[in-house]
Amino acid sequence: MNTRKIIMDCDPGHDDAIAMILAAVQPDLEILGITTVSGNAEIEKTTMNALKVCDLVSLTDVVVSKGASEPLVRIRETAPGIHGDSGLDGPEMPEPSRSWSKEHGSDTIIRLLKESDEPVTILPTGPLTNIALALTKAPEIKDNIEEIVLMGGGTFGNWTPTAEFNIWADPEAAKKVFDSGIPTVVMGLDITHQAQATEEVIDQVNKIDNHVAKIVGELLAFFRSTYKEMFDFDGAPVHDVLTVAYCVAPELFETKDVNIAVETKGEFTAGTTLIDLHGVTGRKVNAKFGIGLDVEGFWKLMMKALKKY
Amino acid sequence: MNTRKIIMDCDPGHDDAIAMILAAVQPDLEILGITTVSGNAEIEKTTMNALKVCDLVSLTDVVVSKGASEPLVRIRETAPGIHGDSGLDGPEMPEPSRSWSKEHGSDTIIRLLKESDEPVTILPTGPLTNIALALTKAPEIKDNIEEIVLMGGGTFGNWTPTAEFNIWADPEAAKKVFDSGIPTVVMGLDITHQAQATEEVIDQVNKIDNHVAKIVGELLAFFRSTYKEMFDFDGAPVHDVLTVAYCVAPELFETKDVNIAVETKGEFTAGTTLIDLHGVTGRKVNAKFGIGLDVEGFWKLMMKALKKY
Amino acid sequence: MNTRKIIMDCDPGHDDAIAMILAAVQPDLEILGITTVSGNAEIEKTTMNALKVCDLVSLTDVVVSKGASEPLVRIRETAPGIHGDSGLDGPEMPEPSRSWSKEHGSDTIIRLLKESDEPVTILPTGPLTNIALALTKAPEIKDNIEEIVLMGGGTFGNWTPTAEFNIWADPEAAKKVFDSGIPTVVMGLDITHQAQATEEVIDQVNKIDNHVAKIVGELLAFFRSTYKEMFDFDGAPVHDVLTVAYCVAPELFETKDVNIAVETKGEFTAGTTLIDLHGVTGRKVNAKFGIGLDVEGFWKLMMKALKKY
Amino acid sequence: MNTRKIIMDCDPGHDDAIAMILAAVQPDLEILGITTVSGNAEIEKTTMNALKVCDLVSLTDVVVSKGASEPLVRIRETAPGIHGDSGLDGPEMPEPSRSWSKEHGSDTIIRLLKESDEPVTILPTGPLTNIALALTKAPEIKDNIEEIVLMGGGTFGNWTPTAEFNIWADPEAAKKVFDSGIPTVVMGLDITHQAQATEEVIDQVNKIDNHVAKIVGELLAFFRSTYKEMFDFDGAPVHDVLTVAYCVAPELFETKDVNIAVETKGEFTAGTTLIDLHGVTGRKVNAKFGIGLDVEGFWKLMMKALKKY
Ligand SMILES: [Ca+2]
Ligand SMILES: [Ca+2]
Ligand SMILES: [Ca+2]
Ligand SMILES: [Ca+2]
Repeated sequence: MNTRKIIMDCDPGHDDAIAMILAAVQPDLEILGITTVSGNAEIEKTTMNALKVCDLVSLTDVVVSKGASEPLVRIRETAPGIHGDSGLDGPEMPEPSRSWSKEHGSDTIIRLLKESDEPVTILPTGPLTNIALALTKAPEIKDNIEEIVLMGGGTFGNWTPTAEFNIWADPEAAKKVFDSGIPTVVMGLDITHQAQATEEVIDQVNKIDNHVAKIVGELLAFFRSTYKEMFDFDGAPVHDVLTVAYCVAPELFETKDVNIAVETKGEFTAGTTLIDLHGVTGRKVNAKFGIGLDVEGFWKLMMKALKKY
Repeated sequence: MNTRKIIMDCDPGHDDAIAMILAAVQPDLEILGITTVSGNAEIEKTTMNALKVCDLVSLTDVVVSKGASEPLVRIRETAPGIHGDSGLDGPEMPEPSRSWSKEHGSDTIIRLLKESDEPVTILPTGPLTNIALALTKAPEIKDNIEEIVLMGGGTFGNWTPTAEFNIWADPEAAKKVFDSGIPTVVMGLDITHQAQATEEVIDQVNKIDNHVAKIVGELLAFFRSTYKEMFDFDGAPVHDVLTVAYCVAPELFETKDVNIAVETKGEFTAGTTLIDLHGVTGRKVNAKFGIGLDVEGFWKLMMKALKKY
Repeated sequence: MNTRKIIMDCDPGHDDAIAMILAAVQPDLEILGITTVSGNAEIEKTTMNALKVCDLVSLTDVVVSKGASEPLVRIRETAPGIHGDSGLDGPEMPEPSRSWSKEHGSDTIIRLLKESDEPVTILPTGPLTNIALALTKAPEIKDNIEEIVLMGGGTFGNWTPTAEFNIWADPEAAKKVFDSGIPTVVMGLDITHQAQATEEVIDQVNKIDNHVAKIVGELLAFFRSTYKEMFDFDGAPVHDVLTVAYCVAPELFETKDVNIAVETKGEFTAGTTLIDLHGVTGRKVNAKFGIGLDVEGFWKLMMKALKKY
Repeated sequence: MNTRKIIMDCDPGHDDAIAMILAAVQPDLEILGITTVSGNAEIEKTTMNALKVCDLVSLTDVVVSKGASEPLVRIRETAPGIHGDSGLDGPEMPEPSRSWSKEHGSDTIIRLLKESDEPVTILPTGPLTNIALALTKAPEIKDNIEEIVLMGGGTFGNWTPTAEFNIWADPEAAKKVFDSGIPTVVMGLDITHQAQATEEVIDQVNKIDNHVAKIVGELLAFFRSTYKEMFDFDGAPVHDVLTVAYCVAPELFETKDVNIAVETKGEFTAGTTLIDLHGVTGRKVNAKFGIGLDVEGFWKLMMKALKKY
């Protein structure tokens, strides 16, 4: 198998950070760029967090571009109750060794897609603002996107009863992406809640004796504590990490071909994804939706990656 | 325990019919009236079906009133794919021995509530049009409603990816009910899908040697076949029956106090119920939502009832 | 010309009251019944006002039925800034000589339509709740409605920038009526603002020497003062009166055949009527919309009527 | 008075073209750049048209950047029925002498605003996609925008009964602009319909003996014919031209300080602007809305400009 070229569009974020850590040591992945978006925290924070994680995993050659500081249309909201005030509370991490690119995140996405000889996969793990901006400015980039593998949505919600945070935070951007015709794989809450970092998982991580694993252990411990408090979960679901895992080990995943529509109107339901699992809508398939995960295999992949550091 | 006075507002419908059959032999329930609504089938059909079931279980003294033939605002849609063309396909049942009352179903609800010395419980198992009409015409009836125990909604849908049929069929009526301030218990898909009539259940029914059990067996067999075909379910969820079971055996049910909002706008989401299980909305509690069922206990209750015929 | 049978469904209201006064002396009109609705004021007030006006104009044989106290779905709002706290501030009028019927307004509409040998015209001059209730309960009454001649809507608003009060107060009911297929004539703000009771008009009224004219003069004076204050109008538009005038003197009116759709969703626009004057929507004609009024002819009709008292 | 620095963001379009022609000879205006958007026609056509007009009026030093080819979220629609297939049907104009910039229109707006020592006025006369993109990518540019003087919206519509084309074509972008807090002047249909190029006006233009006036005469003749056909207007309203006229001769305009909200939801009303002329909404002022025009003065300004060529 050839290496797969990817762009990570993220809002680190504990699970975004771990997704980067997993990706950085995959021989099958070539990270072309990292773009950031406002989401779990304000844009300066998520961008600083991305740079810190790059330092941690020696991704210092990869461009990091700051993207959208606010949604396309709506008022920005962040998620400090889940990720802490910094967006990445828990471990102590040094200030980044470099600053972000002068290029806007959405322009980096456009440029990297235009420059690449081969189709590129985009892994959005925050609100979809940058992707929507890129598609609006340069719709022709669709032709060089192999796939969008995103974390977002689900048949139930976490931020409202029916909406997941990433989609809820910028529903108009999400609608743009889902209606774009680009092949899209969706890691929604249905599957990401299967990947919970329980006490046992965290113990396993903590037994790996290197600095990166130590940081991951601290990230998971913090993340688990907020999920315990807010949702009474036993483990922290490492949502975003599944996008990377899917790219390198799709055999761990069961997906279903479905139509997904994004509600942008509604009195209570903006940001809700309608996942047509039973084909009741008559709308045509536009996504692969993750429904089943080989949980053991997933954590093995994660531990194997952490041991490489 | 005193007997509980109830009004059954229904659209039979296989599960509505079985709910009537369960209710008719409960010493703790007094059925004041049966009102019908367009839903699973057109109003004439659901009303004829209600009358047939009354004959079957000797409820011939209870008033049966034909109610709304169409939703408050929207276009009527029915569910022949699930309940057959008659709304009650499967068993052969004789033409009813009497006709429906001249009083409109919504007026029967108003009258029975005004006439009763004690508070009355309403069990809506179809679209909520009659209840909304009654509340709009005579808001003062709220004072004599003990509780509304309804089948509808859920954290996921069956008619659209996010909407259950009863709520979807008349979202404006549902909004009226949920916003009314009346104590409401909601048997949504989350709990009704726990009560599936599997092959074993149907076998048990078929071993009961009386005419009513024979009809119930045929109803379940038909219902199970359509659920198999449309949703690939192993058993037929007997949704509406849970409203009656809750009234006589609440100890079989685990419920959670939640806010439930009904979406009436939206491009894709009208009829969606937002069940705030984790208290993320800040909206105040307006319903008890069924989350857990003692499945064995439930079927015991059912078999015990059928043996009384 | 034969007499035209009418039902007046109203929320008096200054202009509703004057509409009744105009109607009561028309030889060509037979008032079958008067039904009231919450709108300009709460239902008890609008019903008491209707009864007072009946006494004033000796309509004591006509049934007056109290109708809906709240909209189909939404929260009730009234318009005391325009009509005063009583809904009919200004003149002193004695308490009514009788009470309202025990029949609900919506049921009176149904009954009168069913009892009449000839088609009946309905003149709704408040929110359309009663009409929607009647149509939902008894859709078959459509066949005996000659025409609905209503006051409501327009190409601009008075209660919001785009919505007129009657439609805004119960948009779902309005949608039901406009989508019903019943021939409908719409006196919207475009034409009712042409019929302003200016100082000159009020002077003319005051010169008519009878008790009814005296009351009308006082009603107009009060109404004019609130319109001056809230909208800086020179005269008070006697909106509702145009529905009666249209029934007896259609030659005073220029109308256009158009499609009218009612917005029930929207963040800001619920209750907006979309009057397709230029045929840009492709939706089919469902209403005659008043665009031009013979103002002089209209006031002549009014003065002639007042002189009959 | 100092010169006022402006950026013209347009979709020529007959009236956009005439706006450029008026602007090009104003000593008080400095045109920093021209950016184009899809609207009256597809983006390649509107950009080519802008370049042709630049050649006509010797604006060959001003950057022309191609902007958004589609709205933020919705499907693109154009207006060939009004502007012909080219977007600028009527006169024969030579192919442009140069091509558009490589910079995206939205980036040109950002760059020019950042480069300018003094605040800049933006004159959007098409859908607001470029402005919304610029504001989303670089919200800090707000600080250097003196004013947005745009053509769009009104208390009534032309593309739907309640929506004007520019706002309707990208309501989400319009919402972004109106909610941005930037001082905004709105030339809506209420005032632009006062500026109709009648036969007399066109005669006046045709008497001016230069090439530019000849082209303007042909543009107006074509535009007038489509307005006659579609809306039965006597003259063609030169909508966009008013934005330029306002910048150089504000004394010709009567405006009112109002709140303007943009509907993005709704079943029928997306793109409707709610102009709160009577202060009924309680929402705070965010725009100056054009209500009155010195029509004679406006055409004098136009003729004076044409004579300069
Ligand atoms: Ca994330
Ligand atoms: Ca049912
Ligand atoms: Ca009225
Ligand atoms: Ca334009």
